[in-house]
Amino acid sequence: MKIKTIAFDADDTLWVNEPYFREAEEKFASLLEDYLPAHSTLKELYKQELENLPVYGYGIKGFMLSMIETAMEITSNNLPDQMVPSIIQIGRDMLAKPVELLPGVEEVLQNLNGDYRIVLATKGDLLDQERKLNKSGLESHFHHIEIMSEKKTNDFQKLIKHLDIAPEEFLMVGNSLKSDILPVLDLGGNAIHIPFHITWVHERIEHEVEHPNFRKAEKISEVENLLAELNQ
Amino acid sequence: MKIKTIAFDADDTLWVNEPYFREAEEKFASLLEDYLPAHSTLKELYKQELENLPVYGYGIKGFMLSMIETAMEITSNNLPDQMVPSIIQIGRDMLAKPVELLPGVEEVLQNLNGDYRIVLATKGDLLDQERKLNKSGLESHFHHIEIMSEKKTNDFQKLIKHLDIAPEEFLMVGNSLKSDILPVLDLGGNAIHIPFHITWVHERIEHEVEHPNFRKAEKISEVENLLAELNQ
Repeated sequence: MKIKTIAFDADDTLWVNEPYFREAEEKFASLLEDYLPAHSTLKELYKQELENLPVYGYGIKGFMLSMIETAMEITSNNLPDQMVPSIIQIGRDMLAKPVELLPGVEEVLQNLNGDYRIVLATKGDLLDQERKLNKSGLESHFHHIEIMSEKKTNDFQKLIKHLDIAPEEFLMVGNSLKSDILPVLDLGGNAIHIPFHITWVHERIEHEVEHPNFRKAEKISEVENLLAELNQ
Repeated sequence: MKIKTIAFDADDTLWVNEPYFREAEEKFASLLEDYLPAHSTLKELYKQELENLPVYGYGIKGFMLSMIETAMEITSNNLPDQMVPSIIQIGRDMLAKPVELLPGVEEVLQNLNGDYRIVLATKGDLLDQERKLNKSGLESHFHHIEIMSEKKTNDFQKLIKHLDIAPEEFLMVGNSLKSDILPVLDLGGNAIHIPFHITWVHERIEHEVEHPNFRKAEKISEVENLLAELNQ
């Protein structure tokens, strides 16, 4: 058994996240329907978000600021009275969302615990990710929580060093090929991809991955069997 | 020598931070001078920030959102055209500030390294604290970086457990009695307080601290001598 530590991504791997962003985007676009058709507003928003990533990072607060800046852009700084309050409300509603666990999550974490050291490795806003972890009731399953500002090769290298293991003893389970899978394979680690039905454009990767340390699952309950394969 | 690990707070302990917030607050108050005198605007802003701490946490993005919400409140949602763009600009300017190290910081870190494990323990926005650490050029001095959403007794307990040491082997150095000193003493750890000339109201504690594991310094260069005392 070579794998010692299993890290799980959180958003859209353990619990629902992306649909809340999609819902928020729709509400945002409808605020601006007198100015632009929805698809153009969303295109502007995405452009603004990408531009802002290096300054605001991932998470809802940055998303709120990006919505406000997009509205400034679209209205040429002539924001109608209720625009900003409505955007703030969209963001606040997101921050108050319940945490909806994906099917099978608790059982898998329970089964793996004891045999493996279980870690949470997630991107995003510190406080908001802590809030979700807390609401999820899953906290006790994790030996270590790592909230990362980015999930690039270099970031996983630091995490693996911090966990004091070799890359081949590390398995990452997540829904984003770009953030959870490719950087880990790159380091010589193992990875299981569980696609979620919605993926943010920024996280999309079109090509298929083939690698001896890589497996693809349809749902999290398959992790145990795939793990046995990877451990051979 | 009982102390093994020394954790340093970052903002206003290693580098300048609070003056940038004061400067931003003044600019913000001047945007609203047609509505309220500056001290009343700042009072409203502080109220809003406290209310928002549980949702937005510490850091500049939350501060930006709090300024916007305060302006909404003061103008009864009739925000003049340039208000929100001006607030966003105040926040963006803060995020682009240079990192100004406090005197003696580099020397102390250099002298302690080798004899002690040096850790950074700071509150705030993940990405923004990483940005500052990066700009500071101090990153290589730290064995571990802990960016915390809060600095209460419970949070330090987790950190000390994570560092795998006993509380009496831990020393915290920081400028906030409330966030850096009292919770650590509470756990049986050691603490050195280096007051900064400006402290956010929320972090202020009026009473004096007396404790065998506690020392007060005027500047960071005193840490080495005080450490020798605490180690006796």
